[in-house]
Amino acid sequence: MRVVKLGGSLLRYAREILPVLREHEVLIVPGGGVFADAVRKVYMEHSLDESAAHFMAIAAMDAYGEFLSSVSGIPARQALEGSLPAVLLPYRLMRERDPLPHSWQVTSDSIACYIAALLGEKHLVILTDVDGICVEGTLVDEIKADQLDKLGETCVDAYLPKLLRRYNITCTVANGRSTEVVKALLRGEAVGTKITP
Amino acid sequence: MRVVKLGGSLLRYAREILPVLREHEVLIVPGGGVFADAVRKVYMEHSLDESAAHFMAIAAMDAYGEFLSSVSGIPARQALEGSLPAVLLPYRLMRERDPLPHSWQVTSDSIACYIAALLGEKHLVILTDVDGICVEGTLVDEIKADQLDKLGETCVDAYLPKLLRRYNITCTVANGRSTEVVKALLRGEAVGTKITP
Repeated sequence: MRVVKLGGSLLRYAREILPVLREHEVLIVPGGGVFADAVRKVYMEHSLDESAAHFMAIAAMDAYGEFLSSVSGIPARQALEGSLPAVLLPYRLMRERDPLPHSWQVTSDSIACYIAALLGEKHLVILTDVDGICVEGTLVDEIKADQLDKLGETCVDAYLPKLLRRYNITCTVANGRSTEVVKALLRGEAVGTKITP
Repeated sequence: MRVVKLGGSLLRYAREILPVLREHEVLIVPGGGVFADAVRKVYMEHSLDESAAHFMAIAAMDAYGEFLSSVSGIPARQALEGSLPAVLLPYRLMRERDPLPHSWQVTSDSIACYIAALLGEKHLVILTDVDGICVEGTLVDEIKADQLDKLGETCVDAYLPKLLRRYNITCTVANGRSTEVVKALLRGEAVGTKITP
Protein backbone atom coordinates (compact mmCIF):
# COMPACT_ATOMS: atom_id res chain seq x y z
CA MET A 1 0.00 0.00 0.00
CA ARG A 2 1.02 3.59 -0.47
CA VAL A 3 -0.34 6.46 1.50
CA VAL A 4 -0.69 9.42 -0.86
CA LYS A 5 -1.72 12.82 0.37
CA LEU A 6 -3.41 14.76 -2.39
CA GLY A 7 -3.09 18.48 -1.75
CA GLY A 8 -6.09 20.78 -1.78
CA SER A 9 -4.29 22.97 -4.32
CA LEU A 10 -4.70 20.11 -6.83
CA LEU A 11 -8.50 20.31 -6.87
CA ARG A 12 -8.61 21.34 -10.51
CA TYR A 13 -6.21 18.55 -11.48
CA ALA A 14 -8.06 15.86 -9.54
CA ARG A 15 -9.85 14.47 -12.60
CA GLU A 16 -6.48 13.84 -14.27
CA ILE A 17 -4.53 12.54 -11.26
CA LEU A 18 -7.10 10.20 -9.75
CA PRO A 19 -7.49 7.86 -12.76
CA VAL A 20 -3.72 7.28 -12.47
CA LEU A 21 -3.89 6.64 -8.72
CA ARG A 22 -6.88 4.34 -8.93
CA GLU A 23 -4.83 1.74 -10.80
CA HIS A 24 -2.73 1.28 -7.67
CA GLU A 25 -3.22 0.10 -4.09
CA VAL A 26 -3.19 3.56 -2.62
CA LEU A 27 -4.88 5.16 0.34
CA ILE A 28 -5.53 8.78 -0.59
CA VAL A 29 -5.51 11.28 2.26
CA PRO A 30 -7.18 14.53 1.19
CA GLY A 31 -5.86 18.01 1.89
CA GLY A 32 -8.23 20.73 3.01
CA GLY A 33 -8.04 23.12 0.08
CA VAL A 34 -10.70 25.77 -0.37
CA PHE A 35 -12.70 24.25 2.48
CA ALA A 36 -9.82 24.70 4.92
CA ASP A 37 -9.26 28.19 3.48
CA ALA A 38 -12.80 29.07 4.61
CA VAL A 39 -11.90 27.79 8.10
CA ARG A 40 -8.70 29.81 8.14
CA LYS A 41 -10.58 32.95 7.11
CA VAL A 42 -13.10 32.54 9.94
CA TYR A 43 -10.24 31.76 12.33
CA MET A 44 -8.52 35.03 11.39
CA GLU A 45 -11.60 37.24 11.31
CA HIS A 46 -13.33 35.92 14.41
CA SER A 47 -10.48 35.26 16.86
CA LEU A 48 -11.27 31.58 16.95
CA ASP A 49 -9.14 29.31 19.09
CA GLU A 50 -6.76 26.92 17.36
CA SER A 51 -8.33 23.85 18.87
CA ALA A 52 -11.69 24.51 17.23
CA ALA A 53 -9.96 25.49 13.99
CA HIS A 54 -8.04 22.19 14.05
CA PHE A 55 -11.19 20.06 13.94
CA MET A 56 -12.93 22.43 11.54
CA ALA A 57 -9.99 22.07 9.15
CA ILE A 58 -10.18 18.26 9.48
CA ALA A 59 -13.91 18.41 8.67
CA ALA A 60 -12.73 20.34 5.59
CA MET A 61 -10.51 17.35 4.69
CA ASP A 62 -13.62 15.14 4.68
CA ALA A 63 -15.33 17.61 2.35
CA TYR A 64 -12.39 17.50 -0.06
CA GLY A 65 -12.24 13.71 0.32
CA GLU A 66 -15.89 13.44 -0.71
CA PHE A 67 -15.06 15.58 -3.72
CA LEU A 68 -12.10 13.37 -4.70
CA SER A 69 -14.20 10.24 -4.34
CA SER A 70 -17.05 11.69 -6.32
CA VAL A 71 -15.01 12.81 -9.33
CA SER A 72 -13.02 9.55 -9.51
CA GLY A 73 -15.35 6.79 -8.38
CA ILE A 74 -12.69 5.73 -5.84
CA PRO A 75 -14.64 4.74 -2.71
CA ALA A 76 -14.41 7.02 0.30
CA ARG A 77 -14.30 5.53 3.77
CA GLN A 78 -13.92 6.63 7.36
CA ALA A 79 -12.28 3.38 8.47
CA LEU A 80 -8.53 3.00 8.40
CA GLU A 81 -8.71 -0.58 7.17
CA GLY A 82 -10.44 -1.74 4.01
CA SER A 83 -9.96 -2.38 0.31
CA LEU A 84 -7.80 -0.22 -1.90
CA PRO A 85 -7.70 2.16 -3.64
CA ALA A 86 -9.70 4.32 -1.28
CA VAL A 87 -10.06 7.91 -0.18
CA LEU A 88 -9.79 8.24 3.58
CA LEU A 89 -12.21 10.61 5.32
CA PRO A 90 -10.08 11.26 8.41
CA TYR A 91 -12.41 13.40 10.53
CA ARG A 92 -14.01 10.61 12.54
CA LEU A 93 -10.72 8.88 13.24
CA MET A 94 -8.99 12.13 14.20
CA ARG A 95 -11.79 13.17 16.52
CA GLU A 96 -11.71 9.79 18.22
CA ARG A 97 -7.92 9.52 18.58
CA ASP A 98 -6.97 13.19 18.67
CA PRO A 99 -3.23 12.46 18.53
CA LEU A 100 -1.74 15.73 17.27
CA PRO A 101 -1.37 19.27 18.63
CA HIS A 102 -4.24 21.61 17.78
CA SER A 103 -2.21 24.11 15.82
CA TRP A 104 -1.98 25.47 12.29
CA GLN A 105 1.50 23.92 12.20
CA VAL A 106 -0.36 20.61 11.94
CA THR A 107 -2.22 20.33 8.66
CA SER A 108 -3.15 17.49 6.36
CA ASP A 109 0.56 16.75 5.69
CA SER A 110 1.10 15.81 9.33
CA ILE A 111 -2.22 13.99 9.43
CA ALA A 112 -1.24 11.93 6.36
CA CYS A 113 2.04 11.08 8.09
CA TYR A 114 0.19 10.01 11.23
CA ILE A 115 -2.12 7.81 9.10
CA ALA A 116 0.90 6.22 7.41
CA ALA A 117 2.37 5.51 10.84
CA LEU A 118 -0.88 3.95 12.08
CA LEU A 119 -0.76 1.65 9.06
CA GLY A 120 2.86 0.72 9.70
CA GLU A 121 3.99 2.30 6.43
CA LYS A 122 7.53 3.62 6.13
CA HIS A 123 6.86 5.84 3.14
CA LEU A 124 4.51 8.71 2.48
CA VAL A 125 3.82 10.54 -0.77
CA ILE A 126 2.69 14.15 -0.72
CA LEU A 127 1.36 15.41 -4.03
CA THR A 128 1.27 19.17 -4.17
CA ASP A 129 1.35 21.93 -6.80
CA VAL A 130 5.12 22.53 -6.78
CA ASP A 131 8.04 20.34 -7.82
CA GLY A 132 9.36 19.66 -4.32
CA ILE A 133 11.28 21.36 -1.53
CA CYS A 134 13.42 24.35 -2.45
CA VAL A 135 16.48 25.42 -0.48
CA GLU A 136 17.54 28.98 -1.25
CA GLY A 137 15.48 28.91 -4.41
CA THR A 138 16.85 25.61 -5.71
CA LEU A 139 14.87 22.37 -5.84
CA VAL A 140 16.62 19.62 -3.88
CA ASP A 141 16.42 15.87 -4.58
CA GLU A 142 16.79 14.90 -0.96
CA ILE A 143 16.79 16.57 2.42
CA LYS A 144 16.94 15.37 6.03
CA ALA A 145 13.92 16.09 8.18
CA ASP A 146 15.99 18.08 10.66
CA GLN A 147 17.39 20.26 7.87
CA LEU A 148 13.85 20.81 6.61
CA ASP A 149 12.81 21.74 10.13
CA LYS A 150 15.26 24.66 10.05
CA LEU A 151 14.10 26.05 6.69
CA GLY A 152 11.06 27.86 8.05
CA GLU A 153 8.01 27.92 5.80
CA THR A 154 8.07 25.38 2.96
CA CYS A 155 5.42 23.67 0.84
CA VAL A 156 4.81 21.13 3.63
CA ASP A 157 3.56 21.89 7.11
CA ALA A 158 5.91 22.82 9.94
CA TYR A 159 5.11 19.80 12.09
CA LEU A 160 5.78 17.17 9.41
CA PRO A 161 9.57 16.90 9.96
CA LYS A 162 9.00 16.05 13.64
CA LEU A 163 6.55 13.29 12.74
CA LEU A 164 8.77 11.84 10.01
CA ARG A 165 11.51 11.50 12.60
CA ARG A 166 9.18 10.17 15.30
CA TYR A 167 7.77 7.46 13.06
CA ASN A 168 10.91 6.89 10.94
CA ILE A 169 9.03 7.61 7.72
CA THR A 170 10.49 8.77 4.41
CA CYS A 171 8.35 11.25 2.49
CA THR A 172 8.39 12.09 -1.20
CA VAL A 173 7.02 15.50 -2.14
CA ALA A 174 6.16 15.73 -5.83
CA ASN A 175 4.18 17.79 -8.29
CA GLY A 176 0.70 16.36 -8.80
CA ARG A 177 -0.08 18.76 -11.62
CA SER A 178 1.83 16.44 -13.95
CA THR A 179 0.35 13.00 -14.45
CA GLU A 180 3.75 11.97 -15.88
CA VAL A 181 5.37 12.79 -12.55
CA VAL A 182 2.69 10.83 -10.70
CA LYS A 183 3.14 7.84 -13.02
CA ALA A 184 6.94 7.97 -12.61
CA LEU A 185 6.52 8.13 -8.84
CA LEU A 186 4.26 5.08 -8.85
CA ARG A 187 6.81 3.20 -10.99
CA GLY A 188 9.31 3.85 -8.21
CA GLU A 189 11.36 6.47 -10.03
CA ALA A 190 12.93 9.33 -8.13
CA VAL A 191 10.91 12.48 -8.63
CA GLY A 192 10.44 15.57 -6.52
CA THR A 193 12.14 15.74 -3.13
CA LYS A 194 12.72 12.85 -0.78
CA ILE A 195 12.63 13.84 2.90
CA THR A 196 14.50 11.30 5.01
CA PRO A 197 13.82 10.87 8.74
CA MET B 1 -35.81 20.57 25.06
CA ARG B 2 -35.89 22.85 22.09
CA VAL B 3 -34.17 22.14 18.82
CA VAL B 4 -32.79 25.43 17.51
CA LYS B 5 -31.17 25.70 14.13
CA LEU B 6 -28.71 28.55 14.07
CA GLY B 7 -28.21 29.78 10.53
CA GLY B 8 -24.79 30.14 8.99
CA SER B 9 -25.64 33.74 8.14
CA LEU B 10 -25.56 34.50 11.88
CA LEU B 11 -21.86 33.72 12.26
CA ARG B 12 -21.00 37.30 13.20
CA TYR B 13 -23.84 37.41 15.74
CA ALA B 14 -22.96 34.08 17.35
CA ARG B 15 -21.15 35.63 20.30
CA GLU B 16 -24.32 37.57 21.20
CA ILE B 17 -26.91 34.85 20.54
CA LEU B 18 -25.21 31.88 22.15
CA PRO B 19 -24.98 33.28 25.71
CA VAL B 20 -28.79 33.66 25.54
CA LEU B 21 -29.29 30.13 24.24
CA ARG B 22 -26.93 28.54 26.73
CA GLU B 23 -29.26 29.43 29.60
CA HIS B 24 -31.83 27.04 28.15
CA GLU B 25 -32.14 23.33 27.46
CA VAL B 26 -31.54 23.67 23.76
CA LEU B 27 -29.95 21.47 21.15
CA ILE B 28 -28.33 23.76 18.60
CA VAL B 29 -28.16 22.48 15.04
CA PRO B 30 -25.63 24.47 13.02
CA GLY B 31 -26.18 25.79 9.52
CA GLY B 32 -23.41 25.51 6.96
CA GLY B 33 -22.59 29.17 6.35
CA VAL B 34 -19.36 30.13 4.67
CA PHE B 35 -18.18 26.52 4.83
CA ALA B 36 -21.19 25.32 2.83
CA ASP B 37 -20.69 28.28 0.48
CA ALA B 38 -17.25 26.87 -0.35
CA VAL B 39 -18.89 23.52 -1.12
CA ARG B 40 -21.51 25.17 -3.31
CA LYS B 41 -18.81 27.05 -5.24
CA VAL B 42 -16.88 23.83 -5.93
CA TYR B 43 -20.15 22.12 -6.85
CA MET B 44 -20.90 24.80 -9.41
CA GLU B 45 -17.41 25.17 -10.85
CA HIS B 46 -16.47 21.49 -11.01
CA SER B 47 -19.72 19.77 -12.05
CA LEU B 48 -19.85 17.83 -8.83
CA ASP B 49 -22.73 15.45 -8.25
CA GLU B 50 -25.34 16.41 -5.67
CA SER B 51 -24.78 13.32 -3.58
CA ALA B 52 -21.15 14.24 -2.86
CA ALA B 53 -22.13 17.87 -2.33
CA HIS B 54 -24.77 16.76 0.19
CA PHE B 55 -22.24 15.14 2.51
CA MET B 56 -19.66 17.86 1.91
CA ALA B 57 -22.24 20.44 3.00
CA ILE B 58 -23.01 18.38 6.13
CA ALA B 59 -19.27 18.26 6.92
CA ALA B 60 -19.52 22.06 6.63
CA MET B 61 -22.24 21.99 9.33
CA ASP B 62 -19.79 20.25 11.66
CA ALA B 63 -17.21 22.97 10.94
CA TYR B 64 -19.75 25.67 11.82
CA GLY B 65 -20.84 23.65 14.87
CA GLU B 66 -17.25 23.53 16.12
CA PHE B 67 -17.12 27.29 15.66
CA LEU B 68 -20.36 27.82 17.63
CA SER B 69 -19.14 25.59 20.42
CA SER B 70 -15.77 27.28 20.57
CA VAL B 71 -17.04 30.85 20.81
CA SER B 72 -19.70 29.98 23.42
CA GLY B 73 -18.29 27.18 25.55
CA ILE B 74 -21.43 25.17 24.82
CA PRO B 75 -20.24 21.56 24.39
CA ALA B 76 -20.34 20.08 20.89
CA ARG B 77 -21.28 16.45 20.45
CA GLN B 78 -21.89 13.96 17.66
CA ALA B 79 -24.39 11.91 19.67
CA LEU B 80 -28.07 12.69 19.50
CA GLU B 81 -28.58 12.06 23.21
CA GLY B 82 -26.77 13.83 26.03
CA SER B 83 -26.85 16.81 28.34
CA LEU B 84 -28.12 20.21 27.27
CA PRO B 85 -27.40 22.83 26.10
CA ALA B 86 -25.29 21.32 23.35
CA VAL B 87 -24.24 21.93 19.78
CA LEU B 88 -24.95 18.93 17.59
CA LEU B 89 -22.31 17.95 15.03
CA PRO B 90 -24.62 16.09 12.63
CA TYR B 91 -22.16 14.72 10.07
CA ARG B 92 -21.57 11.35 11.69
CA LEU B 93 -25.26 10.74 12.36
CA MET B 94 -26.28 11.81 8.87
CA ARG B 95 -23.65 9.62 7.22
CA GLU B 96 -24.78 6.65 9.26
CA ARG B 97 -28.54 7.12 8.79
CA ASP B 98 -28.58 8.95 5.46
CA PRO B 99 -32.34 9.63 5.65
CA LEU B 100 -32.81 12.55 3.25
CA PRO B 101 -32.52 13.10 -0.50
CA HIS B 102 -29.10 14.21 -1.69
CA SER B 103 -30.18 17.51 -3.13
CA TRP B 104 -29.57 21.21 -2.58
CA GLN B 105 -33.28 21.40 -1.69
CA VAL B 106 -32.25 19.66 1.52
CA THR B 107 -30.05 21.91 3.66
CA SER B 108 -29.52 22.36 7.37
CA ASP B 109 -33.17 23.48 7.81
CA SER B 110 -34.41 20.07 6.73
CA ILE B 111 -31.67 18.35 8.71
CA ALA B 112 -32.67 20.26 11.85
CA CYS B 113 -36.28 19.17 11.27
CA TYR B 114 -35.20 15.56 10.88
CA ILE B 115 -33.19 15.81 14.14
CA ALA B 116 -36.25 17.26 15.93
CA ALA B 117 -38.31 14.35 14.62
CA LEU B 118 -35.73 11.80 15.80
CA LEU B 119 -35.97 13.36 19.25
CA GLY B 120 -39.76 13.25 19.21
CA GLU B 121 -40.01 17.04 19.31
CA LYS B 122 -43.06 18.74 17.85
CA HIS B 123 -41.48 22.16 17.53
CA LEU B 124 -38.43 23.47 15.72
CA VAL B 125 -36.89 26.93 15.88
CA ILE B 126 -34.95 28.29 12.92
CA LEU B 127 -32.90 31.38 13.67
CA THR B 128 -31.91 33.19 10.52
CA ASP B 129 -30.96 36.72 9.45
CA VAL B 130 -34.44 37.89 8.39
CA ASP B 131 -37.62 38.45 10.39
CA GLY B 132 -39.53 35.46 9.05
CA ILE B 133 -41.36 34.32 5.95
CA CYS B 134 -42.59 36.98 3.54
CA VAL B 135 -45.55 36.51 1.22
CA GLU B 136 -45.61 39.04 -1.60
CA GLY B 137 -43.22 41.24 0.32
CA THR B 138 -45.14 41.16 3.60
CA LEU B 139 -43.99 39.31 6.70
CA VAL B 140 -46.60 36.80 7.84
CA ASP B 141 -47.19 35.63 11.43
CA GLU B 142 -48.29 32.17 10.41
CA ILE B 143 -48.37 30.03 7.31
CA LYS B 144 -49.31 26.45 6.53
CA ALA B 145 -46.51 24.21 5.27
CA ASP B 146 -48.39 23.47 2.06
CA GLN B 147 -48.82 27.20 1.36
CA LEU B 148 -45.10 27.69 2.01
CA ASP B 149 -44.38 24.85 -0.39
CA LYS B 150 -46.03 26.83 -3.19
CA LEU B 151 -44.11 30.07 -2.55
CA GLY B 152 -40.95 29.01 -4.35
CA GLU B 153 -37.69 30.24 -2.86
CA THR B 154 -37.96 31.53 0.71
CA CYS B 155 -35.51 31.95 3.60
CA VAL B 156 -35.92 28.25 4.48
CA ASP B 157 -35.02 25.33 2.27
CA ALA B 158 -37.45 23.89 -0.25
CA TYR B 159 -37.71 20.46 1.37
CA LEU B 160 -38.60 21.72 4.86
CA PRO B 161 -42.39 22.04 4.30
CA LYS B 162 -42.56 18.35 3.28
CA LEU B 163 -40.74 17.28 6.42
CA LEU B 164 -42.84 19.48 8.72
CA ARG B 165 -45.92 17.76 7.33
CA ARG B 166 -44.38 14.29 7.45
CA TYR B 167 -43.35 14.63 11.10
CA ASN B 168 -46.19 16.92 12.19
CA ILE B 169 -43.77 19.57 13.43
CA THR B 170 -44.44 23.27 13.88
CA CYS B 171 -41.51 25.55 13.01
CA THR B 172 -40.85 29.11 14.12
CA VAL B 173 -38.59 31.14 11.85
CA ALA B 174 -37.19 34.21 13.60
CA ASN B 175 -34.47 36.79 13.35
CA GLY B 176 -31.40 35.74 15.32
CA ARG B 177 -29.66 39.07 14.76
CA SER B 178 -31.72 40.46 17.64
CA THR B 179 -31.06 38.95 21.06
CA GLU B 180 -34.37 40.52 22.16
CA VAL B 181 -36.19 38.42 19.57
CA VAL B 182 -34.34 35.29 20.71
CA LYS B 183 -35.16 36.03 24.37
CA ALA B 184 -38.84 36.64 23.52
CA LEU B 185 -38.92 33.40 21.57
CA LEU B 186 -37.47 31.46 24.50
CA ARG B 187 -40.08 33.06 26.81
CA GLY B 188 -42.70 31.56 24.52
CA GLU B 189 -43.80 34.80 22.89
CA ALA B 190 -44.92 34.86 19.29
CA VAL B 191 -42.13 36.23 17.12
CA GLY B 192 -41.23 35.74 13.49
CA THR B 193 -43.30 33.32 11.42
CA LYS B 194 -44.90 30.12 12.64
CA ILE B 195 -45.07 27.40 9.98
CA THR B 196 -47.78 24.87 10.84
CA PRO B 197 -47.76 21.32 9.47
